[in-house]
Amino acid sequence: MRELPFDAADPRLAAAAWSRLVEPGDPAAGTLVAHLGPVEALDWVVGVVRRGEAAGARPWEQAVARWAPRLEHLDVRRELDVLTRLGGHLLVPGDPRWPVPLDDLGEARPFALWVRGRLAARDDDAGRQVAVVGARAATTYGQQVAAELATGLVAAGVAVVSGGAYGIDAAAHRGALGADGHTVAVLAGGVDRLYPAGNSALLESIAATGGVVAEVPPGCAPSRSRFLARNRLIAALGAATVVVEAAWRSGALSTAAHAASLARPVGAVPGPVTSMASAGCHRLLREQAAVCVTDAAEVLELVGPAGAHLPEAPAVQPGLLDGLDPRAARVLDALPARASAPVANVARAAGLPVADVRAALGHLELEGRVERDGSAWRRGRRPAGGPR
Amino acid sequence: MRELPFDAADPRLAAAAWSRLVEPGDPAAGTLVAHLGPVEALDWVVGVVRRGEAAGARPWEQAVARWAPRLEHLDVRRELDVLTRLGGHLLVPGDPRWPVPLDDLGEARPFALWVRGRLAARDDDAGRQVAVVGARAATTYGQQVAAELATGLVAAGVAVVSGGAYGIDAAAHRGALGADGHTVAVLAGGVDRLYPAGNSALLESIAATGGVVAEVPPGCAPSRSRFLARNRLIAALGAATVVVEAAWRSGALSTAAHAASLARPVGAVPGPVTSMASAGCHRLLREQAAVCVTDAAEVLELVGPAGAHLPEAPAVQPGLLDGLDPRAARVLDALPARASAPVANVARAAGLPVADVRAALGHLELEGRVERDGSAWRRGRRPAGGPR
Repeated sequence: MRELPFDAADPRLAAAAWSRLVEPGDPAAGTLVAHLGPVEALDWVVGVVRRGEAAGARPWEQAVARWAPRLEHLDVRRELDVLTRLGGHLLVPGDPRWPVPLDDLGEARPFALWVRGRLAARDDDAGRQVAVVGARAATTYGQQVAAELATGLVAAGVAVVSGGAYGIDAAAHRGALGADGHTVAVLAGGVDRLYPAGNSALLESIAATGGVVAEVPPGCAPSRSRFLARNRLIAALGAATVVVEAAWRSGALSTAAHAASLARPVGAVPGPVTSMASAGCHRLLREQAAVCVTDAAEVLELVGPAGAHLPEAPAVQPGLLDGLDPRAARVLDALPARASAPVANVARAAGLPVADVRAALGHLELEGRVERDGSAWRRGRRPAGGPR
Repeated sequence: MRELPFDAADPRLAAAAWSRLVEPGDPAAGTLVAHLGPVEALDWVVGVVRRGEAAGARPWEQAVARWAPRLEHLDVRRELDVLTRLGGHLLVPGDPRWPVPLDDLGEARPFALWVRGRLAARDDDAGRQVAVVGARAATTYGQQVAAELATGLVAAGVAVVSGGAYGIDAAAHRGALGADGHTVAVLAGGVDRLYPAGNSALLESIAATGGVVAEVPPGCAPSRSRFLARNRLIAALGAATVVVEAAWRSGALSTAAHAASLARPVGAVPGPVTSMASAGCHRLLREQAAVCVTDAAEVLELVGPAGAHLPEAPAVQPGLLDGLDPRAARVLDALPARASAPVANVARAAGLPVADVRAALGHLELEGRVERDGSAWRRGRRPAGGPR
């Protein structure tokens, strides 16, 4: 295998490379990158492929075999050029403008985001948005309700996030744009291909005043599996998800399920029982998987006061978690205040894989923030940043 | 005060008299009759009035003072004549056709029912009915849904119960009648005055094939307070209550609240959020006070298989509760199988007032079904009906 044609030691380029190399939501890649970081993970894959080690049937060998074909032609400089020509920018985890709500996805967090416009109206606005989703085959009623909800949300300073489809998605964006509000379209394909074509003018308007974003690089086609993976991003970006119209089986229900699995509130708009376009909403209501919402005020109640949906500030002294990446902060916060705990307990408390916790503890130990106590760990006795 | 012009020692006439004497839902009267029975309670009231004892401000004196004016002209023979001429019949608690679900109302149980037609299609059908209620100011959509639900319910062998109003009530009855099903209209006024006049032909049809019933005697006007009290009967007669359309404040919501307080399932039919006629239904859904129902099959799920909503058969040997009135049966069933229990414990287990339990235990003791054990009670050691 040839050398990679870009600087694979640059974490931004490595993250961009991962977003090209694997399909969105690839669990093996998510785990690998979460453990090693994008640079080391990419280096490991390149090494395995070069040495021809990925020939067996073990899960990791099959994963590398799955990625190897794209590795051959991988050159993210091309995709980044396209993005730059479109006036866009790349975001990777840890960037100041990276939307931290996506970190709740854990190992399913995207490697990078390819952005046109701005994800948030202001830099301190992360989380101040609600996902408004629904059927492509929407009724006039559903489109009217979606537009009115979006109008009411942006009037309250809450941005809208949705897909780029016809029907409810488009109506929600139009409602937000019509009220001069911020709206974000999350696409399943690259941000250079505004899909569907009939919405390209709308999506250009969104890119000009709000944000158009994808986790796959320019050039990627929107496939069915990418649509389904994309739904997790909409659910994670929204402080709540509202389903305006959905058939009994509908992609919007998958977005609602992702939101629920992230412990985000889900709302469903009722409609006539004679309308098949509302059957999915009624299903959510019937299964108590959603709260009945009929106007923007009720949607706003779902998210509570500004930022109320964000995790509560951990009960530790100010500054303890400053400067830590989210994973390390979670691990440190999961350590008991005055006792030591084995890794397994910390993993349970933090809700992270044991391997993640080990890696984070290692970093924290180097910084003097945690100490070994036999086979267990405790918080460092010296102030953060002090001498060891 | 003159003598009562009818045989006030006849329990049926005494019960009918109570239904004329006091307003529906009068709590003092309900308690009094529950404790003493209609004959003794009436005798007591007559005596108090005759002796002029009800002049003070104590609650029972105020109650008697409230009832005294009607006592002066009380003659239930007139009302019973009217009922007979209409082809109707009186039901009192304990009658074979008395709808036992009403007993769940406890002391708010009506004293008697003035019935035209039949309350149940068959004598073993008690409880096989669902209340379908909603706004008078219904939309075409709501009326259509109400009729379709009723059609589906009667097709499944479940009767409909509702009020006699325009809108949802009338649509539900029409749906049931159109499918040759059994339907029951519970009126707030006497069954001789089919109110509202515009529904008189419909209500005559219901009386001819189903049932038209009131807890007030013929001649009584439907007043606002009687409508509200009437709603508890609809809720109690229905194994479940479904609200098809209701404004934000609507009498149908009071029926739903009664059903909930009786631990009966409540369903709400969603509608367009743009329709004020559905706002009450959406309120119920939003407050999780109702399950979202969109068709008859989902309504039937609320009540489960035939009779599943009825209290489980008590776990005692066959025949033990035979021939007992419901209160005595509950008390006997609440006694431990092999131990004795103080009255307070029996009252808690039976969910009845202590005074009720004392009265029932006295009767049961006379029948040899319970025995005293110091200050506690236990089940009788001899078979029911055997010699003491």
